[in-house]
Amino acid sequence: MRLAIIGTGLIGTSVAMAAARIEGVELVGWDIDPAELKIASERSGLAEADSLGSAVSDADAVLVAVPVGVSQEVVNAVLEHAGPDALITDAGSTKRAVVEQTGDVRFVGGHPLAGGEVGGAASARADLFKGATWFLTPVDSTAGVQLERAFRLVSDLGAKPRAVAPDVHDRILATVSHLPHVLANILVSEAAGTVSDEDESLPATGPSFRDATRVAGAPSSIWTDIYISNAEALIERLASVEAELANVRGMLERRDGPALTAWNDAAGAQKLRLAGGGGIGRSVHQIRVQVPNRPGVLAEIALSLGQAGIDLADLQLHPADDRATGTIVLGIEGGENVERAETLISGLGHKVSEEQ
Amino acid sequence: MRLAIIGTGLIGTSVAMAAARIEGVELVGWDIDPAELKIASERSGLAEADSLGSAVSDADAVLVAVPVGVSQEVVNAVLEHAGPDALITDAGSTKRAVVEQTGDVRFVGGHPLAGGEVGGAASARADLFKGATWFLTPVDSTAGVQLERAFRLVSDLGAKPRAVAPDVHDRILATVSHLPHVLANILVSEAAGTVSDEDESLPATGPSFRDATRVAGAPSSIWTDIYISNAEALIERLASVEAELANVRGMLERRDGPALTAWNDAAGAQKLRLAGGGGIGRSVHQIRVQVPNRPGVLAEIALSLGQAGIDLADLQLHPADDRATGTIVLGIEGGENVERAETLISGLGHKVSEEQ
Repeated sequence: MRLAIIGTGLIGTSVAMAAARIEGVELVGWDIDPAELKIASERSGLAEADSLGSAVSDADAVLVAVPVGVSQEVVNAVLEHAGPDALITDAGSTKRAVVEQTGDVRFVGGHPLAGGEVGGAASARADLFKGATWFLTPVDSTAGVQLERAFRLVSDLGAKPRAVAPDVHDRILATVSHLPHVLANILVSEAAGTVSDEDESLPATGPSFRDATRVAGAPSSIWTDIYISNAEALIERLASVEAELANVRGMLERRDGPALTAWNDAAGAQKLRLAGGGGIGRSVHQIRVQVPNRPGVLAEIALSLGQAGIDLADLQLHPADDRATGTIVLGIEGGENVERAETLISGLGHKVSEEQ
Repeated sequence: MRLAIIGTGLIGTSVAMAAARIEGVELVGWDIDPAELKIASERSGLAEADSLGSAVSDADAVLVAVPVGVSQEVVNAVLEHAGPDALITDAGSTKRAVVEQTGDVRFVGGHPLAGGEVGGAASARADLFKGATWFLTPVDSTAGVQLERAFRLVSDLGAKPRAVAPDVHDRILATVSHLPHVLANILVSEAAGTVSDEDESLPATGPSFRDATRVAGAPSSIWTDIYISNAEALIERLASVEAELANVRGMLERRDGPALTAWNDAAGAQKLRLAGGGGIGRSVHQIRVQVPNRPGVLAEIALSLGQAGIDLADLQLHPADDRATGTIVLGIEGGENVERAETLISGLGHKVSEEQ
């Protein structure tokens, strides 16, 4: 398989280094910055293309790993130059805009939950994605074969793929990443304001402040684009936090101890519930699903399982000889999820059987 | 010196264990829960008093370490039973209310920035306060001799005392501790809301969410009282955060990249500036100050230095034979602060000389 990597910064070069370990993968890369491309080449052995077009024209799969502000533009350029059967995926941290504007059956949006404080090819690591969630954002029109290939590529890089609808992805990221960054910035400016109001230096503070402000002032070169590309979902979250702050403020104005206790207890319970998900090194159970061979079937199943929090350790698509039907083999993580998965898939109208 | 500890939970028992190492200290304690008192006695050797009154009646110094919701009541009971020359201090996490309602010259408010996830005497440690900031909150009427004794006690326990006005203390704590707790709770409920909106489990999230929610759902048995006791300062902070969130939301609604960049860059600069304070193991320079022997002089000097972020490694009060004047010896941390300290103290009308 010929894998083209467009954008050889931290993510692109890490992908190249991880992919260099996969048998049968031939790597080619391109970056707008020749120095970054050279480092990527030295670190992963990828061939340096002299243009985006020449990098992607013969590729079986293309990964676009560029700043989210130029993501759409670069994805469009890749789609223009790539072959009709190529898989094109990206690594941008917001998904709805790029997926909606693309509408090309060759494109499957992606986003690895991995990164580092310091960007650039020099900071790349082959194990950057080991065990990390890597979102894939298929839509109704996504070809099953492309989703399967994206799923396999991401798994081969060491990540755990999770299918999620693009708008759900953006809402989740607004909550678990973009909102914490905004709040960290605001906490820092509140502290700076308190200090300068009082002409006072801030004493050594407790861990709650340190932890809550660790990501404050993350590089604007990356984050301004992230905020703007996910503006809609983030605006919704900010408004929701404003309302909740006003609610807590009301409890304080009324000195309403019972309400504060109920609110605080609820947060504790929610935290426990959120922490209950996930799990590492769980057993994998295979199930087989008979499906009609039409676009969107695999995406629908993967999204349904992803929504229910069921992780897939494996996903294979086997078309039947008649090309009208096929079999999907799914590796379900955690024995307790097998029955739920079967019920969900049966509910979509497909026949399920457990692997012998 | 006979030190009485009222409330032998995590803080009180840790104080007892640390004080047990100080030469010439005789320890007595009382707690509303006999089981906690017994553990404190076993761990520190303090004598178990059979009532609050008998614990404090002969004490030279009394430390009140009870939940902030009953702080005022217990401090009042101690003031009623303690002798006319006793020092009474406390460890409550808000200070304005207890200091204002007390108005007793024997009382100096205090608050160590130390604690633990798990409370109780069994979790106490002799080194809990090592290097921790311990706020002292003198007011104009505070007797110099009491402030000096509180300062020395706190230093002997291993902490770094910092004088700060009670209302400034509460504003700082609202910002660096109570606000982060509120935001952590809200982030968790935002995430739980996003998840249940989507009937979706939360994927393994990045470190920004984990760090920002670490203190969510802290025990209501402690935190409801803290929130209410510092309601005024916290309400001000919450309103300020609401306004700032609306401001950021406006930038997002306008898709205003330059404004977002400026805002994000400012947070980064403020974070650096805030992190620039402090410093460990710095050299100590002594200066001497001639002062009139009247209440409030030492408090005024200590507050002025504390406000300027100048840490005191030492503080001694030497009354002259005529009792009308005295000499204060101050250990100033960091050579670069000596001149600033001298200027500040001269500005208050006192004569300063450097120690030979």
